[in-house]
Amino acid sequence: MAQINYFEKLFYPKTIAFIGASEKRMWQLRGYVDRNYQGKLYFISKGSDKIYDIDCVKDVSDLPDGIDHAIIAVNRSQLIDIVKKCISKNFATIHIFSAGTGEFDEEGRKIEDEIYNLLKNSSTRAIGPNCMGLYSTGGRFTFNASFKADPIGKVAIISQSGDLTERFVNNLNYLGVDFSVGASIGNSISLNITDLIQYLNDDDGTEIISIYFEGFSRYHLKEGRKLYELLKKVSKPIIFLRTGKTDAGKRSAESHTGSLTTSNQIWNAVFSQTNTIQVRSFEELIDSTLAFNRYKDLLPEEKGILLITWSGGNATIASDLITQLGATVPEFSTKTKTKLKKLIRFGGVVNPLDLPWKNFSDEYSKIAQIAIEEPYIGGVLAETYQPFDKDAWDNYFENLLFLKDLCNKQRKPFFLSLPFTDYQDREEYRKKILETGVPVFPSFERAAKAFLNLYNYKKKLQAYTHENRPENLLG
Amino acid sequence: MAQINYFEKLFYPKTIAFIGASEKRMWQLRGYVDRNYQGKLYFISKGSDKIYDIDCVKDVSDLPDGIDHAIIAVNRSQLIDIVKKCISKNFATIHIFSAGTGEFDEEGRKIEDEIYNLLKNSSTRAIGPNCMGLYSTGGRFTFNASFKADPIGKVAIISQSGDLTERFVNNLNYLGVDFSVGASIGNSISLNITDLIQYLNDDDGTEIISIYFEGFSRYHLKEGRKLYELLKKVSKPIIFLRTGKTDAGKRSAESHTGSLTTSNQIWNAVFSQTNTIQVRSFEELIDSTLAFNRYKDLLPEEKGILLITWSGGNATIASDLITQLGATVPEFSTKTKTKLKKLIRFGGVVNPLDLPWKNFSDEYSKIAQIAIEEPYIGGVLAETYQPFDKDAWDNYFENLLFLKDLCNKQRKPFFLSLPFTDYQDREEYRKKILETGVPVFPSFERAAKAFLNLYNYKKKLQAYTHENRPENLLG
Repeated sequence: MAQINYFEKLFYPKTIAFIGASEKRMWQLRGYVDRNYQGKLYFISKGSDKIYDIDCVKDVSDLPDGIDHAIIAVNRSQLIDIVKKCISKNFATIHIFSAGTGEFDEEGRKIEDEIYNLLKNSSTRAIGPNCMGLYSTGGRFTFNASFKADPIGKVAIISQSGDLTERFVNNLNYLGVDFSVGASIGNSISLNITDLIQYLNDDDGTEIISIYFEGFSRYHLKEGRKLYELLKKVSKPIIFLRTGKTDAGKRSAESHTGSLTTSNQIWNAVFSQTNTIQVRSFEELIDSTLAFNRYKDLLPEEKGILLITWSGGNATIASDLITQLGATVPEFSTKTKTKLKKLIRFGGVVNPLDLPWKNFSDEYSKIAQIAIEEPYIGGVLAETYQPFDKDAWDNYFENLLFLKDLCNKQRKPFFLSLPFTDYQDREEYRKKILETGVPVFPSFERAAKAFLNLYNYKKKLQAYTHENRPENLLG
Repeated sequence: MAQINYFEKLFYPKTIAFIGASEKRMWQLRGYVDRNYQGKLYFISKGSDKIYDIDCVKDVSDLPDGIDHAIIAVNRSQLIDIVKKCISKNFATIHIFSAGTGEFDEEGRKIEDEIYNLLKNSSTRAIGPNCMGLYSTGGRFTFNASFKADPIGKVAIISQSGDLTERFVNNLNYLGVDFSVGASIGNSISLNITDLIQYLNDDDGTEIISIYFEGFSRYHLKEGRKLYELLKKVSKPIIFLRTGKTDAGKRSAESHTGSLTTSNQIWNAVFSQTNTIQVRSFEELIDSTLAFNRYKDLLPEEKGILLITWSGGNATIASDLITQLGATVPEFSTKTKTKLKKLIRFGGVVNPLDLPWKNFSDEYSKIAQIAIEEPYIGGVLAETYQPFDKDAWDNYFENLLFLKDLCNKQRKPFFLSLPFTDYQDREEYRKKILETGVPVFPSFERAAKAFLNLYNYKKKLQAYTHENRPENLLG
């Protein structure tokens, strides 16, 4: 028998069966019917004959054998029976939506044990239990109808939280980022994070892999070593948010996905010895995904940042915090200062460049060009705040486009900070900027963290190339 | 001659003169004409006879003597002459809007030196130069017409950045916070931060003082000691953002306001020996001001937080980060767990309480009540994310009101995290929540930092009461 490509079946199934379809689950079913899914879709429902114009069958036994992907949304008391039927009918993959299993109580753990053993001795593979399941733009289905259907993007998300997957996709869609696939994997007792990373690293449709991870299930206590060996070899940026680092976090992870967390020391070793980009907050996961999506081929060579600010106060705040984060705001050379002095008649000739009165004039571009071309500048962070009137905005927008093109030419990533304001036109301006391809962040701090992750990834790639990666600390 | 109350003249002037009024300055003049200012307003303009229906005069010599407050918005070349005229006509206070002085170049420093000496030997006091000036809700004028005119609030802001003052007031107005007064003080060569804190600490209309500070002017190099002595004595919460901590920050501060920054060690000693609340970012300044405005009389006794979350993933993230910030997410006692277990049939009985399916039911309130009443809980952070449909929202809103009242009764502050979403109804819900008096934050992290500042302030107050404040480290 030929090896089954389970991931092809998961993300590009030719047949999907939704077991437990009902009128109450319209919110969940919508993502399987409204995307022009090209395969054959089956609904299995006890109570309805027709949902969304699709004829329902009563039982799994009414389905053909060899379904590519089945979603199981039934009470946990029926789970074992349904899984047995799916296995006996040679379904390739199942997604166990149902919760109340290993994360919940003793009875749930017994159910999970039995399902684990059934799957282990079968050729069926599962996502879950206790998770939202899959999102595939190319496969034309999604577990959450709020996710963008088009276009097919290059970012993949693997997450042990359905809600955070939703927030992640919603936030990044809003920021102009498109996805290849997403997987909310819950307790992951069958296919787990290692399997998914392996697949996505080989998948031509994916360029960036973002991860929210709580821990391995109790069936995969030795999976850490395998993940570590894999992370040493992956060729794509992996942006990794790990939680369960503190006692309260561990308690929460166990209650949420039944995951057993590993010691922080081991994880720190993993992150220091692989090219994995460790992030420390959900916001940083979002921001760094945005930055890598735009600039994975434009990684900064220097950690010196040119700051172009909208106000002197925020220039001072940002200079402090960027330095404290580990980047620099390098002072201009004397020669450069002399050149700049001729153009800046009003204001200081320093980095941060505080150009509040220049934003709308041609001089803005001229000043910025001199500064951007300096060799110690690795990237540019500019800020815009108040849109003022339309003419001023149009002039400023021209300057932005100039900066963007210049930075591209100079091979230096360009970030824009657009802090929250209550101005009505803000949303319109934000969208217009995003359409140009300039990534927009809500603060200098968040932009700077994303910049540093690009820079640190570049350094890691260079270290790897030079074969002087740190020693294997895992022994 | 009786002592002049300069601050009465600054914030509640009976006469205001705007020197340098012009059609181009409409944006700036609007805040003096559109607030139903009760005093007499004079415009001094070279080019216009009438602006905003107000007759203009040509020169300061055309004004009566003893003006309470004059704004000077002229080219720096005219500054010395105008300041001389204001002094000779016994103006009580002036606000020097004009820039290009000590922060700028050698010529600017000479101008500033002369103005400093003129003022020192006069009975006129100044705000500035290089600043936006004053905002007074009770005085019915403002330098920025976007600031709320009513009602009169209890928060004061002192800032060395006009733009950050604007962002601060705009953001807090949006969050439902009202102001007594605001002062953008720029280079502050005459009246400085110490004078303003002294006044505001005695001012019955102000309860909370928020500060953005870069450093003292070169005329006030010994002012640090005076400020330190004052901060030891103040009776109101002072929320203090100091910048210029790094080389790049110092460079920026000097270029922005000509300020000379002091060593971090000295400042750390000041913050550890006084009740001043040091914040580390602009966002934290905003969030803590919001928190103190609501809860200065409801300071938490314990640093244990009850977390009520919208998703298990964010529960795990938040548990980690709150612990890492220095608060705790304490585990429930066995007895409490038993009580909770009866109400939580589906989901873990742990703190963080992850109640995604309970948000809309009466059980939400019952569960929360048991947890909130625990003695090791000092405050409550809840999260709401997706509004769902209107009925669900209405039910959830009832639960929120219950929690708010219960927390008030239990003397424990209650914070709501409402992360950004693109849902259209979000803004409507946000406003409705703010109207109830529950403070709304964009993330658990930002809410937790504000909570910790309340808690640490409480601890400082207790230490002060018990007369065991740390030794005087300034020697």
